[in-house]
Amino acid sequence: MDLDLQDLNLAESRGGAGPIRPDPDAPGSNLRHRVFETVRSAGQISRIDLAKQLKVSPASITTLVSELLDLGLLQENSDTSRSTTRGRPPVALSVQPDAGYVVGIKLSRFQHTALLVDAAGQPLAEASLPCLPRRRSLDQVLTETAEVLDMLLRKADLARGDIACIGLGLPGIVDHASGQMVWSPLLTCRAKPLRRIAEDAFGVPVAVDNDANLVTLAELWFGKGRAMADFAVVTVEEGVGMGLVINHRLYRGAGSLGMELGHTKVQLDGALCQCGQRGCLEAYIADYALVREASTALDPASTEVAASDVMLQQLYEQAKAGNEAARVIFRRAGRFLALGLANVVNLFDPPLIILAGARMQYHYLYADEVMREMQGLALNRQTAPQQVETHAWGDLMWAHGAAALALSEIADAMAEGR
Amino acid sequence: MDLDLQDLNLAESRGGAGPIRPDPDAPGSNLRHRVFETVRSAGQISRIDLAKQLKVSPASITTLVSELLDLGLLQENSDTSRSTTRGRPPVALSVQPDAGYVVGIKLSRFQHTALLVDAAGQPLAEASLPCLPRRRSLDQVLTETAEVLDMLLRKADLARGDIACIGLGLPGIVDHASGQMVWSPLLTCRAKPLRRIAEDAFGVPVAVDNDANLVTLAELWFGKGRAMADFAVVTVEEGVGMGLVINHRLYRGAGSLGMELGHTKVQLDGALCQCGQRGCLEAYIADYALVREASTALDPASTEVAASDVMLQQLYEQAKAGNEAARVIFRRAGRFLALGLANVVNLFDPPLIILAGARMQYHYLYADEVMREMQGLALNRQTAPQQVETHAWGDLMWAHGAAALALSEIADAMAEGR
Repeated sequence: MDLDLQDLNLAESRGGAGPIRPDPDAPGSNLRHRVFETVRSAGQISRIDLAKQLKVSPASITTLVSELLDLGLLQENSDTSRSTTRGRPPVALSVQPDAGYVVGIKLSRFQHTALLVDAAGQPLAEASLPCLPRRRSLDQVLTETAEVLDMLLRKADLARGDIACIGLGLPGIVDHASGQMVWSPLLTCRAKPLRRIAEDAFGVPVAVDNDANLVTLAELWFGKGRAMADFAVVTVEEGVGMGLVINHRLYRGAGSLGMELGHTKVQLDGALCQCGQRGCLEAYIADYALVREASTALDPASTEVAASDVMLQQLYEQAKAGNEAARVIFRRAGRFLALGLANVVNLFDPPLIILAGARMQYHYLYADEVMREMQGLALNRQTAPQQVETHAWGDLMWAHGAAALALSEIADAMAEGR
Repeated sequence: MDLDLQDLNLAESRGGAGPIRPDPDAPGSNLRHRVFETVRSAGQISRIDLAKQLKVSPASITTLVSELLDLGLLQENSDTSRSTTRGRPPVALSVQPDAGYVVGIKLSRFQHTALLVDAAGQPLAEASLPCLPRRRSLDQVLTETAEVLDMLLRKADLARGDIACIGLGLPGIVDHASGQMVWSPLLTCRAKPLRRIAEDAFGVPVAVDNDANLVTLAELWFGKGRAMADFAVVTVEEGVGMGLVINHRLYRGAGSLGMELGHTKVQLDGALCQCGQRGCLEAYIADYALVREASTALDPASTEVAASDVMLQQLYEQAKAGNEAARVIFRRAGRFLALGLANVVNLFDPPLIILAGARMQYHYLYADEVMREMQGLALNRQTAPQQVETHAWGDLMWAHGAAALALSEIADAMAEGR
């Protein structure tokens, strides 16, 4: 049975700008939402394990699960693997995969990547569109987004009307709650109501977010974070981003514009950042910062003036070949990365930090030296040192996170529709 | 009726070190706790308003309130002020004040301050003990703590056995969850199981915390924070501390050692901090940082070598009198404070930052210039600029926060005893 998730009044449930969402952490406000998310995260789970995990009475779980079954969002499967106990085997619940389809799209400087998933989060089709690495107008970016969206839908033989929600992520400062794009290195404009504009353009409910939050959602829903209540993600790419999970939920700051680790100041009157301010962490370690240094310090005869990814690769090759100026550039970037990670530890004390982003392929970023330096800058503690993992995900993982964002919107709509 | 809150098995409910507490944010795990806290925070509130505020069904609220009435923790008052509506006037609930007594103690370099409060958080007696401003052994500090505790109890004509819990706050790095003191500028030792040692010494359940968390709890329970779901507190005194409230609850970081704003690094290889590391924010703005600069830059003939508070006052007098070196010292400290506050905005995006601490009497700290600089370093946003308030609380407010910590422990014990 196909249920149109738009019936859940997703679009109507969000008015204009401003923090009009219900408080997701208030007791009792989002139990149905949490039940759905817990089933999705577990893959399969019994009612009794749900009750244990959510610390809710079995009777309440039975009621909430019945509602979700009636809505066609969950399904029952007899779990034969656990039938060794006497009596009736426990019935496992899982998400009804064809309850709806959502699309996740990651916009970036070099290419846009789109992914279609079912209600259980399983990928069904993907598409990508290379583009010229320069800042462009919002109109231009929306035209490109429509192009990659329609490529994806053609592959899956679906129409836009079949899609319950599009999750759209881009680098920069994006206010998920209000749908406002404050600033993005992709765009020539600032301060646009991106969600509303995209909904008008595509005719589908849209959720927008900062791209670091996408990869954090991907880790939370499909990666290492399935098993962890609290962790931080730090991304190094065209900028430096951060995502924080507190108690199995993405935390965006009180006003949903927080977690801008890349724009925390690590030097008074320091290096110029692409945001226009000085001394931001990313002005010392993001791609553009390294390319800027490369163009200053390296022999022009041996360095082509080229696209930033090409120049970064050349810089890396020269460092590997023993060029001292190139080495010093990476070494300093590594020290600032260590400082930024230590600040994450000193502020959030997470049991795990995941370093994500294509740039993690460069050796300096995950070198033992950087990790040692980070531990040296983090406050002394008696517990084990912070665990740091490097996940060099490609854009598809980020798009999967954008799909999780869209699925999460649908779950939010369910909670609001109580 | 006097209920001995120790019956709630507070001490037993906490084993050794480690994060053994129940997840306070899990749905259903802490509703009774939240009901108690909401009544306490409101002063007086009806069942129906409780149900609305906590988004829980009136039937569930009735059950939870009955339990708390039976335990002698809440009481009913006929609220005659609202009897204008026809029919039976709504019954207001409030905390039963004599349900138990707790003590809050703030330890600091110059004096220790203790406050006795009833279960509703109302102060009943206070005491303070001046001490010599030097680092000392844990034994010595515990002897002083016992002294101020017994002074307080004599005033109130109570014995230690009448106290349900002691909340103990001190500067430095303190792990509330495990009870471990990692490092404190008061002490010559590091890494001691402070809670266990204090419980053995006093024969009363003890909760320990970083002193910045105390003042945050005081704001949350008794101050501006009663009306706000999310805010940050930044303290500048002997060090720089931070407290963060997310959705009406104090957040300490995933491992409860977070929020160490004073030890975030704002300069690679920067000024030496009292913690032993370099480039910490507090190494530019805390008392000892200013005194260090004063002793370097000022004319020795005009500056007595004296206790740090005396030197700081002299520095301030010289700056006011037009001494350029003294002005530059305050000016730089103000700029680093602005940078630290901007980092709080960029990471947490709180609607309000409260600047707290005795040092807030110094003009440079709340100068318009500092606020302008902070806004300049915070990311551009379309919303109104962050609200910053200065609350120059004395030690008694911090001790009130320590009492709130103790009351909160009791509420935790209730939640655990479900």
